[in-house]
Amino acid sequence: MEQETHLNESRPATPGTTRPGGRTAKVRRAVLDATLDALAGTGFHALNMDRIATGAGVGKTTVYRRWGSPAGLVADLLRDMAEQSLPASDTGSLADDLRANAELVRTTLADPRMGAVFRAVIAAAACDEECARALAGFYRTRLAAWAPAVARGVARGEAPAGTDPVELLRAVSAPLYYRFAVTREELGADVAERAVAAALAAARDGVFAGA
Amino acid sequence: MEQETHLNESRPATPGTTRPGGRTAKVRRAVLDATLDALAGTGFHALNMDRIATGAGVGKTTVYRRWGSPAGLVADLLRDMAEQSLPASDTGSLADDLRANAELVRTTLADPRMGAVFRAVIAAAACDEECARALAGFYRTRLAAWAPAVARGVARGEAPAGTDPVELLRAVSAPLYYRFAVTREELGADVAERAVAAALAAARDGVFAGA
Repeated sequence: MEQETHLNESRPATPGTTRPGGRTAKVRRAVLDATLDALAGTGFHALNMDRIATGAGVGKTTVYRRWGSPAGLVADLLRDMAEQSLPASDTGSLADDLRANAELVRTTLADPRMGAVFRAVIAAAACDEECARALAGFYRTRLAAWAPAVARGVARGEAPAGTDPVELLRAVSAPLYYRFAVTREELGADVAERAVAAALAAARDGVFAGA
Repeated sequence: MEQETHLNESRPATPGTTRPGGRTAKVRRAVLDATLDALAGTGFHALNMDRIATGAGVGKTTVYRRWGSPAGLVADLLRDMAEQSLPASDTGSLADDLRANAELVRTTLADPRMGAVFRAVIAAAACDEECARALAGFYRTRLAAWAPAVARGVARGEAPAGTDPVELLRAVSAPLYYRFAVTREELGADVAERAVAAALAAARDGVFAGA
């Protein structure tokens, strides 16, 4: 089914940004869902533009014109994942907000489907500069969404003044991603709990203040 | 040059374990050096047994018989890297030993050639079970080599009794590998210094005791 759309206002750099409820958005949704399926199933190296188009029920020309390359698909998927991610929590306790953050990271990576997607995009970032920039952008967006939770905790005096929210959040994520992407160990709830305890202890010691 | 060796006592599972100074060891050295060059140059997916044999000046049959597959080459290279790694430091100070550990990890990952090799083996581990087991074995060996340094620090009272040396060492490595393999940020000396400070603060807080 070679149904082409001709939306010249849709710039290739940010596909689907126009007419959010319209055909452009529907095409983007179908293509990104097919991309997610493909990444979860066979990874980045087997990502095939023609099969994505077929899987999404979208014309090949549309997929090539809007996304350009498999890396372009991955980059847009990561933008979409960052936008669709759950909002940061606001429990009134820094420790509880960090626990919520660690559990969100842990359950995402431990989920068979989303774990496979993250494995694929991390591998893609290792060999493709566009994917690397897109993955960095994904983490930038997520860290920016969660930084206010840490800033509120600092304002309440739960960590020293001057604590860098992003450094503290990275310290929570690092042990989870290290096990996931490098040593490939089980990600039990205890790992998330220990990551939070360690990061908080370091924060209270002033390690992330003036970083 | 199709010079085959016929050492039936050399079992494929642990190539080169017999006659350490002899021809077996020399063939292994040449093949592993060629494997390292290939991983640093073009990564795991382009690893080609025939080219490794040619690069090492060793018969193809030898390479196929002893290592079996590209994953077999990577697995043996990781065994060799673990054996050849610098010994753990013993400065008399837990903080200084952890600094030496963090600097060793950091300079290895930040080195263009060794960084490329680690990127390649981490990517290989993501898509090949034999490589994943070999990489896990590499870290097991390295952690076992460094655990006594932490145990000595605990015995000197520099961290609470019951502190798990391996958990503390992982906490030092995690932020470095997270930046290297996931967020792909610069690995400056400040990152290693902060990783040590954070891990030590957490250890002193008892986070790794009774883990």
